Amino acid sequence: MEDKTQIQEAIKIQGEVVRKLKSEKASKDQIDEEVAKLLELKAQLGGDDGKHQFVLKTAKGTRDYNPKQMAIREKVFNTIIRCFKRHGAETIDTPVFELKETLTGKYGEDSKLIYDLKDQGGELLSLRYDLTVPFARYLAMNKITNIKRYHIAKVYRRDNPAMTRGRYREFYQCDFDIAGQYDAMIPDAECLKIVHEILSELDLGDFRIKVNDRRILDGMFAVCGVPDDKFRTICSTVDKLDKMAWEDVKKEMVNEKGLSEEAADQIGEYVSMQGGMDLAERLLQDQKMSQSKQACAGLSDIKLLFSYLQLFQVTDKVVFDLSLARGLDYYTGVIYEAVLTQAGVAPVATEAQRGAPAEESVSVGSVAGGGRYDGLVGMFDPKGRKVPCVGVSIGIERIFSIMEQKAEASAEKVRTTEVQVMVASAQKNLLEERLKLVTELWNAGIKAEVMYKKNPKLLSQLQHCEEAGIPLVAILGEQELKDGVVKLRVVSTREEFDIHRADLLGEIRRRTSEA
Amino acid sequence: MEDKTQIQEAIKIQGEVVRKLKSEKASKDQIDEEVAKLLELKAQLGGDDGKHQFVLKTAKGTRDYNPKQMAIREKVFNTIIRCFKRHGAETIDTPVFELKETLTGKYGEDSKLIYDLKDQGGELLSLRYDLTVPFARYLAMNKITNIKRYHIAKVYRRDNPAMTRGRYREFYQCDFDIAGQYDAMIPDAECLKIVHEILSELDLGDFRIKVNDRRILDGMFAVCGVPDDKFRTICSTVDKLDKMAWEDVKKEMVNEKGLSEEAADQIGEYVSMQGGMDLAERLLQDQKMSQSKQACAGLSDIKLLFSYLQLFQVTDKVVFDLSLARGLDYYTGVIYEAVLTQAGVAPVATEAQRGAPAEESVSVGSVAGGGRYDGLVGMFDPKGRKVPCVGVSIGIERIFSIMEQKAEASAEKVRTTEVQVMVASAQKNLLEERLKLVTELWNAGIKAEVMYKKNPKLLSQLQHCEEAGIPLVAILGEQELKDGVVKLRVVSTREEFDIHRADLLGEIRRRTSEA
Repeated sequence: MEDKTQIQEAIKIQGEVVRKLKSEKASKDQIDEEVAKLLELKAQLGGDDGKHQFVLKTAKGTRDYNPKQMAIREKVFNTIIRCFKRHGAETIDTPVFELKETLTGKYGEDSKLIYDLKDQGGELLSLRYDLTVPFARYLAMNKITNIKRYHIAKVYRRDNPAMTRGRYREFYQCDFDIAGQYDAMIPDAECLKIVHEILSELDLGDFRIKVNDRRILDGMFAVCGVPDDKFRTICSTVDKLDKMAWEDVKKEMVNEKGLSEEAADQIGEYVSMQGGMDLAERLLQDQKMSQSKQACAGLSDIKLLFSYLQLFQVTDKVVFDLSLARGLDYYTGVIYEAVLTQAGVAPVATEAQRGAPAEESVSVGSVAGGGRYDGLVGMFDPKGRKVPCVGVSIGIERIFSIMEQKAEASAEKVRTTEVQVMVASAQKNLLEERLKLVTELWNAGIKAEVMYKKNPKLLSQLQHCEEAGIPLVAILGEQELKDGVVKLRVVSTREEFDIHRADLLGEIRRRTSEA
Repeated sequence: MEDKTQIQEAIKIQGEVVRKLKSEKASKDQIDEEVAKLLELKAQLGGDDGKHQFVLKTAKGTRDYNPKQMAIREKVFNTIIRCFKRHGAETIDTPVFELKETLTGKYGEDSKLIYDLKDQGGELLSLRYDLTVPFARYLAMNKITNIKRYHIAKVYRRDNPAMTRGRYREFYQCDFDIAGQYDAMIPDAECLKIVHEILSELDLGDFRIKVNDRRILDGMFAVCGVPDDKFRTICSTVDKLDKMAWEDVKKEMVNEKGLSEEAADQIGEYVSMQGGMDLAERLLQDQKMSQSKQACAGLSDIKLLFSYLQLFQVTDKVVFDLSLARGLDYYTGVIYEAVLTQAGVAPVATEAQRGAPAEESVSVGSVAGGGRYDGLVGMFDPKGRKVPCVGVSIGIERIFSIMEQKAEASAEKVRTTEVQVMVASAQKNLLEERLKLVTELWNAGIKAEVMYKKNPKLLSQLQHCEEAGIPLVAILGEQELKDGVVKLRVVSTREEFDIHRADLLGEIRRRTSEA
């Protein structure tokens, strides 16, 4: 009874929380979450009819995939995996959770977004935040100094979800990384080639791949007069340039981060520059920039990178962009990010065009990113031995949304099964004959279905084929059984003809060979 | 400084814990875990060289998959998915965590094995324990009354790991379920057909599929004089028959669960029975058993099931076994479990033969299980509307271990990539030409690799091909470039011949068409 009183009290308080949020016009997500808590409390108390009431939902920021979405997901994955395999990658898998310690100190400010597991006795664990840190842990643990691998798996971030824009708390990453001591920029260029191949093949509209280098950023900060200890924080601010106007970025640098106005203005000049190999050459001659050894090393590598990109035939989409400054701490060299530039593919882009906040308009486009991280594996090695790495991560959720919308818009129906033939009967009492025939088909490797009814109506069997896109129906009736044939019906044309049982397998295979 | 003192104190205490465990000869797992905690504490303090020391391991009960293991995993999954698709299943996916509430009250005593997430504000979450409960939640949430779906994903249990025997805390389940109101036993029989197909195709040695029915168990308990309120707990004890001798099971029934000796003996007679359709017929005539309506309903369905299994041509492996009593609460009708009967496939089986505890010898064999659960979806529906379901779950980890051992034992090398050709050079300064050629191959969809070195030695390029099992090498040299040809080398035979650049793609495809 005491428990019950406590719950009732909690319900009262939670009810007030919800009312307050509603009156304050809080975000829908926030209200939903508090309402869910309220419903859970009420469920604990038990409903009027004494039945336990469940909150029927998935966790905040997550979603189920229905069969149609899975069919699209499979298609996208196949395209990506085909590309990774074409480039000779192996694949590995790591657990969904790691020791909390493994993730500590790798993500800077974003560490607060890591999901921890409850301490139920034993080790302290966290859900993986990306696939890169587990990869580095794997390399160090197994003393691997050489590998080209891909890894497609879900990662977890307690971020503010925006599911209509493809931002989830559980989402897929498709990572391709090359680890090993190699000649400069060759593996880096292959990563960009891979992004180019995948985005072209997925046919998502035009795209651009921005390239920069951490050393150029650092050199630029140095020559612009940013104090050493402010490099990282100023870099984070520059990173916001794809979401904020320069004026606001400058304001943050000067007002919040205490940078001099003069230094900020100098940075402003550089970060407006975009180009190709020519820009790298020009900056190598730049009076100020050329004073930084770091920047020069980065610029020379950008030149080399572009020469390989020419051989790979992908320079049409690649831009050297000094405003690109990816957030993660672990990058040490080249960095890149791919954005979709064709507006109007997704409704979100349309929304952006209509004048939604800049934050939303630009972030829509980013679908891949990565760079070189030569120090991360060394952080795990007891002796600090480094393994140079470069990689790319394809952000698949946004691609899913676009593909889903395309499928929705297209007239073509998305099939969710691959069934080639339905075994049907025209009369009653033929269940046994249907089961015998479908067994014959299954045993021969043919994808076949039968209705789980003793006496299904022919019409309902045919309707199921129409709905599921099954191309053929093998119809059994008294006469067919007597004649040793099956009536094969082509669903799309409704034509029907008798086939000898002995010829049935061949005929089905011939007619569904593209499936 | 205070923090540091606290950590030093904690290290002292933890050191004593480890020493005590070692002196008590505690299990290796337990000691490892406490040592890991000690190392973590020491790491917090910082090492001698001031560097942060990480514990380089995966979480207890979990493991990485290396490329070779992934190649095997892919093969197993492909066989299973091909079978599921052959039977017309769609696929869905659900999040790795659910609201804690969703899992509550579904797993009986096993609930203590559920992983909870830390309360970081927001909803209370747990990692999924199986795929069946999320499936039922999905059906209720989306008001789906009809679906045949498969779901392959990882589930989580805070069980005592026994990784050499394939028992992990993170492991895959491959589930196939049929939901919908259909005529009795037809979908149930298809589930058994699927288990038969998969285990045959995977070629794991001989197997048997045990079948029983919850209603027969309950009826049996009733006619043997088990009080109604003891059905579930006596059922749990019967479930231990595959791990314990009858004598010990009986002891538990009588001594711990307070059953009369007479009732226990009667149960003992029944649970020793095995057979086929004939046994079901015999029990329908059994004076005692036939008094239970429930048992009769179950027995009639077993008869019907066997008649369908005959049509599906799988009765050779199926046994009606009254001792089968699967643990999970949610089963309502037919239940089944597949076991590998061929000893010596896995070393664990060998160990069992040598006289290891019965617990280990038998549990090795179970590789699939499932049954009918007609009430589970109704537990989620606000109005309690039921959706009858039957399904099967393939326990893949044990199958992986067996396949891995087979691969290890076999002479054939497991390839971890599908590369068809390596683009190599015989002389220096041909990087550009190599990159041009490999681009040509990639763009034509050929799986190709190139070494990331400006001037790799021919020998090291050829060695890489031997190691990775790459069948062809396309060698470029000054002469070949002049002649407009490529020297194609067949790695296995070492034969080499010149091919015109125009004919190269065709030649590679022709020679690697099986890949």
